[in-house]
Amino acid sequence: MPSLIEYTDASPEVLEVYDDIMASRHTDWINNFWKALANDPATLRRTWQSIKQIMAPGALDPLTKELIYLAVSATNQCQYCMASHSASARKKGMTDQMLGELMAVVGMANETNALAAGYQVEVDQQFKFPH
Amino acid sequence: MPSLIEYTDASPEVLEVYDDIMASRHTDWINNFWKALANDPATLRRTWQSIKQIMAPGALDPLTKELIYLAVSATNQCQYCMASHSASARKKGMTDQMLGELMAVVGMANETNALAAGYQVEVDQQFKFPH
Amino acid sequence: MPSLIEYTDASPEVLEVYDDIMASRHTDWINNFWKALANDPATLRRTWQSIKQIMAPGALDPLTKELIYLAVSATNQCQYCMASHSASARKKGMTDQMLGELMAVVGMANETNALAAGYQVEVDQQFKFPH
Amino acid sequence: MPSLIEYTDASPEVLEVYDDIMASRHTDWINNFWKALANDPATLRRTWQSIKQIMAPGALDPLTKELIYLAVSATNQCQYCMASHSASARKKGMTDQMLGELMAVVGMANETNALAAGYQVEVDQQFKFPH
Amino acid sequence: MPSLIEYTDASPEVLEVYDDIMASRHTDWINNFWKALANDPATLRRTWQSIKQIMAPGALDPLTKELIYLAVSATNQCQYCMASHSASARKKGMTDQMLGELMAVVGMANETNALAAGYQVEVDQQFKFPH
Amino acid sequence: MPSLIEYTDASPEVLEVYDDIMASRHTDWINNFWKALANDPATLRRTWQSIKQIMAPGALDPLTKELIYLAVSATNQCQYCMASHSASARKKGMTDQMLGELMAVVGMANETNALAAGYQVEVDQQFKFPH
Repeated sequence: MPSLIEYTDASPEVLEVYDDIMASRHTDWINNFWKALANDPATLRRTWQSIKQIMAPGALDPLTKELIYLAVSATNQCQYCMASHSASARKKGMTDQMLGELMAVVGMANETNALAAGYQVEVDQQFKFPH
Repeated sequence: MPSLIEYTDASPEVLEVYDDIMASRHTDWINNFWKALANDPATLRRTWQSIKQIMAPGALDPLTKELIYLAVSATNQCQYCMASHSASARKKGMTDQMLGELMAVVGMANETNALAAGYQVEVDQQFKFPH
Repeated sequence: MPSLIEYTDASPEVLEVYDDIMASRHTDWINNFWKALANDPATLRRTWQSIKQIMAPGALDPLTKELIYLAVSATNQCQYCMASHSASARKKGMTDQMLGELMAVVGMANETNALAAGYQVEVDQQFKFPH
Repeated sequence: MPSLIEYTDASPEVLEVYDDIMASRHTDWINNFWKALANDPATLRRTWQSIKQIMAPGALDPLTKELIYLAVSATNQCQYCMASHSASARKKGMTDQMLGELMAVVGMANETNALAAGYQVEVDQQFKFPH
Repeated sequence: MPSLIEYTDASPEVLEVYDDIMASRHTDWINNFWKALANDPATLRRTWQSIKQIMAPGALDPLTKELIYLAVSATNQCQYCMASHSASARKKGMTDQMLGELMAVVGMANETNALAAGYQVEVDQQFKFPH
Repeated sequence: MPSLIEYTDASPEVLEVYDDIMASRHTDWINNFWKALANDPATLRRTWQSIKQIMAPGALDPLTKELIYLAVSATNQCQYCMASHSASARKKGMTDQMLGELMAVVGMANETNALAAGYQVEVDQQFKFPH
């Protein structure tokens, strides 16, 4: 697997991103995802800047956005993303009860997604031309 | 594909569920998903009762739960579920701006899920034993 | 999208596969999947020969194999495969009740797959070293 | 990750489910999936009751249902579910040869699902209006 | 579903992206994907700029990048993406034979991905510490 | 999990495949994937012969085919396949920069696949009837 680029070995281009990650998150370490992406500085910078923009408060609050992130990651069976974004969600206020309800919805959605495909259900006219 | 069980053709067991769906949702029609499931009344009842329980207000509000449902459905490419749950989310208050931010997070999560797998990133010790 | 290679336009190499498909299935037409694959005769022949071998009776009977095929296709949201393999399964004896139970299991498996990922459940020692 | 609720630490509500799992399965231990779900007793009970109902003998026998479960779990890359349901399937009579044939079908279905999408194959009229 | 933002109805912010898309692609029309994203101008701009950067010539040529895009889209069963990126790939030189070989690899990879999960294959030491 | 069939324990039928794998790859060992498949010699032989045929030089060169394989495997979160095919790709000339660009495309494709589904984008007429 690709090597992880540690802070002390990082180029100035990578360091700039690392420093912004730590400053934005109020942490003093960089998690492995970014150290792996740092093998490709263009992707490192683009991904970080996109996430920073997307996860900022807006019409949806940051905790809701983390819950959505977890919903996708559980659906995709992404172990790393579940681990890292569970930690982020906890920091932003996710309680045990919220996690329980989130996963109940995620489980049910995955179930009904498969049922809709399995029964070959056609979209209702009412959903096609909503008013 | 399986036939759709219309209200006028439904058995008493199915009618009971149909009536509860319409009463709970304050609507006067049944969408195709339930009409297809009605071919298997046990699954119809179990799925409806589970959804009714899971989507009710709790630690997460009903709109947040619909957003999570949409996040899973977009990830799974489930066209029917996107159509039906977009309508539900709109009824519960989802604005265009919320949809935009939801999809931005969903897109980004799918991207980083693939990146984490592609770079074979190992889970950080800090995420394994959080304190 | 790629054109469909009709029987009357097929090369001898493709015709040989078409004839074997119709003979093996006791039908007088070729469905679109094979007409599309015929754009790449090597894939057409390899895929047909593999399916013919795999779906033959063995330790599992042909109907069970079709049910498994449908389980995968519903999970992957493959509309074409649901349509074509539902027809195959019907021909091999799948009843409405079987379809209902099949989809109930498929739905539940997709739900618990997501829950296992969402709760980051570690594999029990008892499952690692079975006796 | 969420803590696992051990039997000795479980609430009466959780204990009731644990006892039913062990009684139904004729085992003396609870696997990690349920210990994780026990963080959310409502999901624990609902999921267990659904699985118990769905996996019971019906038009499909319990072993066939386990094979279908495995087909979905392999498709979704769910390591935990493969481990736990392989054990269940073995207990219900799955032989090495059955596993081999199951996986051959699962592999082929995943292959042809991708081919159908890749070639953008349209559903045949014969599959839309079967008689 | 969200409305499509036509060129004549677009805000200056959206127009700027539309113009850049048409100029970069040497076309005189905007496809629906971008018209849908235009409901959320921030996502429209970020997505376009990322794609423009990522799909540019580099260590991999643009055609190879389109083939990779198609491989992902077929795996995810994304009909829209197959349609749009097939057209892009054709413009960049994809022949029928290339498409055939691409799909053969995509099909095989999806098959062996499922087999590796189904057989619960552990990563070889040789792959963990390559030299 | 299924046992791994070592070279010294293999039947003549399995040995023949093992020898062909090592000869074709110029290696002196068999990786776990094949040792697991060897539990089902028919699948072992069919899968190996298909891969050997598919991954051979053609309209696409062997390195491009490995990149496509990795794109699918990252999308499916297949850890084993990422590990084994990363090694294959390296042997065939994949550089760090190529891996970086490959993963950037894979990430972007997974993002836009989800966006296309989330926005329920309909296929443009121009893509349906290309000229």
